[in-house]
Amino acid sequence: MKTVALAGGVGAARLLRGLTKLVPTRDLTIIGNTGDDFTLYGLHISPDLDTIMYTLAGIVNETNGWGIKNDTHNTLNTLGKLGQETWFKLGDKDLATHIIRTKLLKEGKSLTQATAQLMKMHNLKTKLVPMSNQPVHTKIVSPTQTMDFQEYFVKNQTKPKVTNVIYEDAEKAEPAPGIVEAIDHAQRIIICPSNPILSIAPILAIPAIRRALQATKAYTVAISPIIAGKTIKGPAAKIMNSMGLDASAIGVAKYYKDTADEIIIDQNDASQRNQIQKLRLKVTITNTIMKNLKDSTHLSRIALKKQKRLVEKTQDSISLPARAKK
Amino acid sequence: MKTVALAGGVGAARLLRGLTKLVPTRDLTIIGNTGDDFTLYGLHISPDLDTIMYTLAGIVNETNGWGIKNDTHNTLNTLGKLGQETWFKLGDKDLATHIIRTKLLKEGKSLTQATAQLMKMHNLKTKLVPMSNQPVHTKIVSPTQTMDFQEYFVKNQTKPKVTNVIYEDAEKAEPAPGIVEAIDHAQRIIICPSNPILSIAPILAIPAIRRALQATKAYTVAISPIIAGKTIKGPAAKIMNSMGLDASAIGVAKYYKDTADEIIIDQNDASQRNQIQKLRLKVTITNTIMKNLKDSTHLSRIALKKQKRLVEKTQDSISLPARAKK
Repeated sequence: MKTVALAGGVGAARLLRGLTKLVPTRDLTIIGNTGDDFTLYGLHISPDLDTIMYTLAGIVNETNGWGIKNDTHNTLNTLGKLGQETWFKLGDKDLATHIIRTKLLKEGKSLTQATAQLMKMHNLKTKLVPMSNQPVHTKIVSPTQTMDFQEYFVKNQTKPKVTNVIYEDAEKAEPAPGIVEAIDHAQRIIICPSNPILSIAPILAIPAIRRALQATKAYTVAISPIIAGKTIKGPAAKIMNSMGLDASAIGVAKYYKDTADEIIIDQNDASQRNQIQKLRLKVTITNTIMKNLKDSTHLSRIALKKQKRLVEKTQDSISLPARAKK
Repeated sequence: MKTVALAGGVGAARLLRGLTKLVPTRDLTIIGNTGDDFTLYGLHISPDLDTIMYTLAGIVNETNGWGIKNDTHNTLNTLGKLGQETWFKLGDKDLATHIIRTKLLKEGKSLTQATAQLMKMHNLKTKLVPMSNQPVHTKIVSPTQTMDFQEYFVKNQTKPKVTNVIYEDAEKAEPAPGIVEAIDHAQRIIICPSNPILSIAPILAIPAIRRALQATKAYTVAISPIIAGKTIKGPAAKIMNSMGLDASAIGVAKYYKDTADEIIIDQNDASQRNQIQKLRLKVTITNTIMKNLKDSTHLSRIALKKQKRLVEKTQDSISLPARAKK
């Protein structure tokens, strides 16, 4: 089954570990969020692409969910001693990725080409594509400042109140080559259990991707990243609450109600089934906590299960989540 | 005494460790060779400037003479696993310097400004100036290829026969700001015990520096890097032999005979005194092996000793060593 996955960081990576076991390499396209890409010490860092790559390569730091296992921080500590900011916990092994990516981009390669080369260097054949070769910056707006995600998440530890999220330059960004074709030919779109506002919406904010998702005949399954009102990793619940959205399976369902045919929610949230069904979404209840490959494969298998649409989509009815609109 | 030191890598750094204890900071200008600067993985590396900085900061790896002590190589090993060349033994702590320098240059700072900032970050007040803000590339010519120094020295382990050395773009390079003034006002010029052909000649190959050294009234002392036909570190003897020069104190004296007033040679080479004196150079014999700060201070004190010229220089008589001419 030709499958396209829209992916953020840790939650997506954990799902993809299973999904890549079930979907043949040639049939899977992963569209990675690059709204959180940033430049640190002159190096181009793509946190979500790296998290997916490290997870698929089996070298991810399982405790954090990101970074490389058994990494050291000697460069970072030295940068700190020399007066540089060190809020981003850059590992020495991890640094090799950023150095190579920056070098490839400097040589004129696109982010898509650089990503493909890095995947190949990690002996991965999976097609991981950044959402765009052009920069799109997800910005967190608080009453006092506008921040990059990493600044909000790592440096300010999610303390500022979030009043808005903007996807800077998304409207003029082109999808990376192959993305629109992959969506056009897909039979299944999977929205990974990632932060809807920070990881999935930036992808949807690119007009040609949004249009392709509106036009596709593929059955779309979203997996809720919110379990019992919380997230396994990251600030999705906090951001959703901050933005006045309900940080619950229902809140996620509402967010995706015009994009998805089905939502997979955790067994802890089984009581929310009826309310979600009222949104005319199919609801599947299972364990969505992925502690190991078995959990990831189980959840992937459910996301790939043959289903029939409850509601036949039309170009009119399928619109972008309100909050993802600029 | 206002002093200018022309400096290469390890030998120079060891002398400067002593010299900086004897000459007040405001009176000392170190002109560092940047002919061996190169770009690796997109990072700007200045090997000689770094060796001097790490040595003066007391963090140099004493065994190697370069790099930072107790460093690890996790980024390098990871780059290797990802298929990158790893012949340059880049340490994780060392990498912080290259990252900061590259970032500063990218932001539009000159190499002089970047060097000053890095020195300041290492709590060093010594004025270390790159010979030029423009790139000058020392190239080693062998019968089969033309190489950068690092390529010849580290990658090819000094195996190729050297037929020539060229200082690419030296003729059009400007000295870094302040260099000409420092030489004009100097009372003492010290040519550090560095490789004459690879570390000192690139500095002399910059026309305005050459002219300033020809015009200066400062007494010029060169310290031979060759001891008993060998070098403590680096390939000076090998290169000199390869180029048909005598790898001996006499060979060094001949090389500097039109530039220096005096040459300091090692006690192991005392027998060469008479022959060198015939070149109309003052000869001072002492221990030139610097195992510790005491040795460095001792040698620096001798290099700073008040001396009278044997031969009054004229602009005509003082010329660049033949081999340093392009």
